[in-house]
Amino acid sequence: MIRVNPERFLKDLHHLRSFGAAGVGKGVVRPAFSPSDVEARQWLAAQIEAAGLRPHFDPVGNLFGLTEGPSLLVGSHTDSQPEGGWLDGALGVIAGLEIARAAHEAGGPPVSVVSFQDEEGRFGVTTGSAIWSRNLALEVADRQTDRSGLSFAEARRVMAPMAGDFVDPSRFAGFLEMHIEQGPWLFEAGEAVGVVTDIVGIRDMRITFEGEQNHAGTTPMHRRRDAFQGLARFNALINERFRNVVTPSTVWTIGHVALHPDAHSIVPGRVVFSMQWRDGVSDRLYRMETIIRDTAEEVAREAGLDLSYGEMLGLEPVPMDARLRAALCASAGAVAPGRWREMQSGALHDATNVARLMPAAMLFVPSINGISHAFAEDTDEGELVTGLEVLAGAVARLGG
Amino acid sequence: MIRVNPERFLKDLHHLRSFGAAGVGKGVVRPAFSPSDVEARQWLAAQIEAAGLRPHFDPVGNLFGLTEGPSLLVGSHTDSQPEGGWLDGALGVIAGLEIARAAHEAGGPPVSVVSFQDEEGRFGVTTGSAIWSRNLALEVADRQTDRSGLSFAEARRVMAPMAGDFVDPSRFAGFLEMHIEQGPWLFEAGEAVGVVTDIVGIRDMRITFEGEQNHAGTTPMHRRRDAFQGLARFNALINERFRNVVTPSTVWTIGHVALHPDAHSIVPGRVVFSMQWRDGVSDRLYRMETIIRDTAEEVAREAGLDLSYGEMLGLEPVPMDARLRAALCASAGAVAPGRWREMQSGALHDATNVARLMPAAMLFVPSINGISHAFAEDTDEGELVTGLEVLAGAVARLGG
Repeated sequence: MIRVNPERFLKDLHHLRSFGAAGVGKGVVRPAFSPSDVEARQWLAAQIEAAGLRPHFDPVGNLFGLTEGPSLLVGSHTDSQPEGGWLDGALGVIAGLEIARAAHEAGGPPVSVVSFQDEEGRFGVTTGSAIWSRNLALEVADRQTDRSGLSFAEARRVMAPMAGDFVDPSRFAGFLEMHIEQGPWLFEAGEAVGVVTDIVGIRDMRITFEGEQNHAGTTPMHRRRDAFQGLARFNALINERFRNVVTPSTVWTIGHVALHPDAHSIVPGRVVFSMQWRDGVSDRLYRMETIIRDTAEEVAREAGLDLSYGEMLGLEPVPMDARLRAALCASAGAVAPGRWREMQSGALHDATNVARLMPAAMLFVPSINGISHAFAEDTDEGELVTGLEVLAGAVARLGG
Repeated sequence: MIRVNPERFLKDLHHLRSFGAAGVGKGVVRPAFSPSDVEARQWLAAQIEAAGLRPHFDPVGNLFGLTEGPSLLVGSHTDSQPEGGWLDGALGVIAGLEIARAAHEAGGPPVSVVSFQDEEGRFGVTTGSAIWSRNLALEVADRQTDRSGLSFAEARRVMAPMAGDFVDPSRFAGFLEMHIEQGPWLFEAGEAVGVVTDIVGIRDMRITFEGEQNHAGTTPMHRRRDAFQGLARFNALINERFRNVVTPSTVWTIGHVALHPDAHSIVPGRVVFSMQWRDGVSDRLYRMETIIRDTAEEVAREAGLDLSYGEMLGLEPVPMDARLRAALCASAGAVAPGRWREMQSGALHDATNVARLMPAAMLFVPSINGISHAFAEDTDEGELVTGLEVLAGAVARLGG
């Protein structure tokens, strides 16, 4: 077994929070390649070195802490949402650091650690691990931009002085990622640990309705081609039509809406909005897409709007590796008997990409009130330590 | 009668378009106090002087062209929407200039001209004429800001060097305003002129639904407090409930929507949106307000959202002066027999405010396809001249 040090683990976790601390609760503002993100990675590289591992930055800002020979890889990401919590990916990285450090002190098994870059998708979706796993071509990623129009190519220049080559994945026997659940299930059941069975698939696209911009006082209702009314109608119809297709774990979201010209006294001539949906079954994702496209075309036809789609992002559901899962389940049963479950991940994670390169599995700890991607995100520190010990136990079971 | 010069009128109208020309069709970008607006007013002041009148800027940027003694006042406004047409208020100002100029050449009757400031509401609604008519206190207006946060007090500083006192309204016997219809009725009927019976009343407010910002992948649909879904539900319900209250000329618009944090992968925690409605009958405006407030409270209760309202802007319907209307009708019958009608104005105009100070009336010319507040706004030049001649005929009938 590996004797982890809970105090040291929590101390590092709290120190990491100081990089980009929002000043609101325990919230952090640490988007990929922001000054606070780069400082946090430099601090982490120093901890990795102190732990007896070799820090290595790759060309896209992923930071590895490498053992000499082959090893397991444990970690997640340290970048945050524009308004993020202190745990999210940071928890999995510091857990990886503590386990690698404790294993090094114990003389093995060999454990490497990683903090992937831009998991939160300032420039795309799980950008750093997607590039490393060849899920996303570097040339394509370099052209992707954030909301301000800054390209990934320009953004990653700030870390170029530290950058070496991409790490050869074949040195790793497998990948373990610990993360907060980001949903309510463990917290509501009073459970400490969730072992992930599979990560849901996702579809994400932009839809544009183009109508006619006109005067809000003089254009009779029956003559309007109001883009916002088109969006409202579309939303009502898909909510109704999805009922026959979805399960309780299916989710869909309209999270971004941009009206043009967006003025009180003008009938909106255009709306661009995001449509995102997630499910564990590819076929269901496809059936939902059909409903979305048919409904958008029907609404456009009936309301006299022009319809266009942006490029659709698609990631298929990813099952976790059976052997790694079994080790996590055995460890959870030993550390938290009766306080753990197997469950699906509704969120994307770096493991989604890494699973293309090597066996991968994930462990969840509870999120208080299921809140995440918000300053209010938090988890009881006792549960954080329980998660750390379950993870350490699984690593010990899997050996070198 | 007053012998107006159509060529001179059209030439000035086209020259005015060169200030803030959008480069898209005949569109203009000339918001209140923008460099192009200030240049346009300086050019207009020179034309006023050349026409034998005395140019006078008041403290809020309203530009008058004054005769020595008492007179009628004719005009509108030369500021535009962020994306405006070349006619809108500019038409009424240049028509006023040409009539005042022709009347001066003919030795009477005395006609003064005006271009009010910020009719398009960069800082409020019909700001310049509202302040002049004491519909809006200057101290209150000075605190109003545009979308960038610039206050009216700061904005009007750029014209301070030219500014004199407010003009005493008692010098004017009445106010006539010519404007494009901004709706489809005259154009569709092939008619040249509309004499306005009354200007509809308006209510405008901001509504905020506050829910819970959360992760779009891990928050089950039944646990969400999605602010956008609250807005969509509110929109559907009021569209349904208004049916029992409205007439074919009643209009309502949600033209501005701001989601927070407005990201694809985050359940919207907050939406701020505009709700505006217009009708010719005060009681109906009130009944619609009751439906809006009851529905917003019902939606907030059912969806677990917090509800708050911004300040409500309210302007009552305004009947046009009977004597001035009669002069416009008589002139329309003489100049455009069988090609004119009496009609309501669905748009607010400076006349709404000026009617508090003196008898006021309005004249409409057709808008091609009813389009306005857009670069595509236009009117056949023959109809512009017909409108000018009807207006000149009415001024002649009303005498000094």
